Amino acid sequence: MVIAALAGGVGAARLLRGLVQVCEPAEITAVVNTGDDVVLHGLHVSPDIDTIVYTLAGAVNPETGWGLTGETWAAMDALERYGGITWFRLGDRDLATHLYRTQRLGEGASLSDVTREVALAWGLELHVVPMSDDRVETRVDVEGEGEIAFQDYFVRHRHSVPAKAVRYAGAADARPAPGVLETLLSATRVVVCPSNPILSIAPIMNVPGIEDAVAARRDDVVAVSPIVAGAAIKGPADRLMAELGVEPTVVGVARLYAPFAGTLVVDEADADLASAVEGEGVRCVVAPTVMRGAPEAAALARVVLDG
Amino acid sequence: MVIAALAGGVGAARLLRGLVQVCEPAEITAVVNTGDDVVLHGLHVSPDIDTIVYTLAGAVNPETGWGLTGETWAAMDALERYGGITWFRLGDRDLATHLYRTQRLGEGASLSDVTREVALAWGLELHVVPMSDDRVETRVDVEGEGEIAFQDYFVRHRHSVPAKAVRYAGAADARPAPGVLETLLSATRVVVCPSNPILSIAPIMNVPGIEDAVAARRDDVVAVSPIVAGAAIKGPADRLMAELGVEPTVVGVARLYAPFAGTLVVDEADADLASAVEGEGVRCVVAPTVMRGAPEAAALARVVLDG
Repeated sequence: MVIAALAGGVGAARLLRGLVQVCEPAEITAVVNTGDDVVLHGLHVSPDIDTIVYTLAGAVNPETGWGLTGETWAAMDALERYGGITWFRLGDRDLATHLYRTQRLGEGASLSDVTREVALAWGLELHVVPMSDDRVETRVDVEGEGEIAFQDYFVRHRHSVPAKAVRYAGAADARPAPGVLETLLSATRVVVCPSNPILSIAPIMNVPGIEDAVAARRDDVVAVSPIVAGAAIKGPADRLMAELGVEPTVVGVARLYAPFAGTLVVDEADADLASAVEGEGVRCVVAPTVMRGAPEAAALARVVLDG
Repeated sequence: MVIAALAGGVGAARLLRGLVQVCEPAEITAVVNTGDDVVLHGLHVSPDIDTIVYTLAGAVNPETGWGLTGETWAAMDALERYGGITWFRLGDRDLATHLYRTQRLGEGASLSDVTREVALAWGLELHVVPMSDDRVETRVDVEGEGEIAFQDYFVRHRHSVPAKAVRYAGAADARPAPGVLETLLSATRVVVCPSNPILSIAPIMNVPGIEDAVAARRDDVVAVSPIVAGAAIKGPADRLMAELGVEPTVVGVARLYAPFAGTLVVDEADADLASAVEGEGVRCVVAPTVMRGAPEAAALARVVLDG
């Protein structure tokens, strides 16, 4: 079974860790959001790609869901002497990934090339592909400050300022990374991972050609709701949806995904909303979706594949 | 007494550490070679500036003479996973300096600005100024490979390949950093530190205006020979001088420096060459020049000031 998975960071990484348990990792391609990518200290940081690679490699920090386990922070601590940018914490070993990526991009490699190299270096068989090799920047228009960069919103402000709008700068001119459209069109199943619909999935969909390709496969598209019982499992999806006028429930998710997803998997806690989801024209599957560990992830992966 | 010191890395840093013991640090300006600067992993590394700052801050690794004491290497070790560039070792805490510098340069700050900020962050009163805010790249034409970048020659090849020529790319279009010429013209004494004449001092002199300014002060210019008894205290100066047809002795140094230095301090081991040095039209002062620790550095600084 060939799987294409649209992926953000932590939630997506967990589902992917389930998928590799129940099907051939080499037959899975994760198409990953790069709207969160940021250049910090001159280094190209791709947070969602790294979260997925580290998680699939079994090297992710289990407490945060991102970064490396057993990480040290000597560089960040030393950066405080200079009053440098330390609100975005880059661990010493994690820095190596950004050093390598930046060096390779500077040599003319594409983000796809580098991502493949990084994933191989961690021994992954699953394919990790950025949504685009072109720069797309998710930007958030927030109360008081106007439009700010994603990481300013997400990390510096800890997504605690009210948002008025979200824009995917550069998306209109971006091309899907090599192979992305072919993978979406040929996969047995297209999975929309339980990631933030506005900050993780929408940037991918905004790369011209991707939403059309996914919509063309609508009957084979299974999305997993990142909203459970009206709240995001992690991050600001619920709050942001409400601020942008989308009901922060599985029904709101169904409404956003209806154009391209035939099926939405919702948590058992939302079983009572199943018929409302179906009212949006999306088939609803009720299952446990909270992945506390590998067994839950594998079970959810099976649900998604049975879709 | 106002001092301007032309400086490379380790040897210069040691003499500067002597100078701050015997005169007011705030009255000393080190004009530092940046021909060794290199962009690695997208980060701007200024090895000579950092060696001077770390040394004057008392934070340098005493065993190597460069880098930070008590350094850790998690990032470099992790970079090996990717087959990244690890022959140029950047410690975790040292990385913070390059992260900060690169961030600030990206924001539009000049290298002078950043260098001042870095020196202040380490509590230095001595002024540290790059020779130029413009990019000058020392390049070495070596047997077999043709012209290579300085760090390829110096670190990757461990300066073990025969050199045919050295070029200071960009020097002709570079301007001295703000204040450099004024400092050279107004200092009570101009010191040419015991640094590699070809790889550290010559790049500085090749920035248009600097050699003229130093030469205009020739009677007040005191150089310290980095060659003792026909050998460099550290690094490849002796070998490189010979390869480029310059006698690798204090007499060869005197010949190189005669256009701009009135006095050359040579080690007691070279006392027998004093008259040959003076034959080059340079006054010769014989004194212990090998700085094993702070007392020797202070003693040499006194000789230079009495010069």
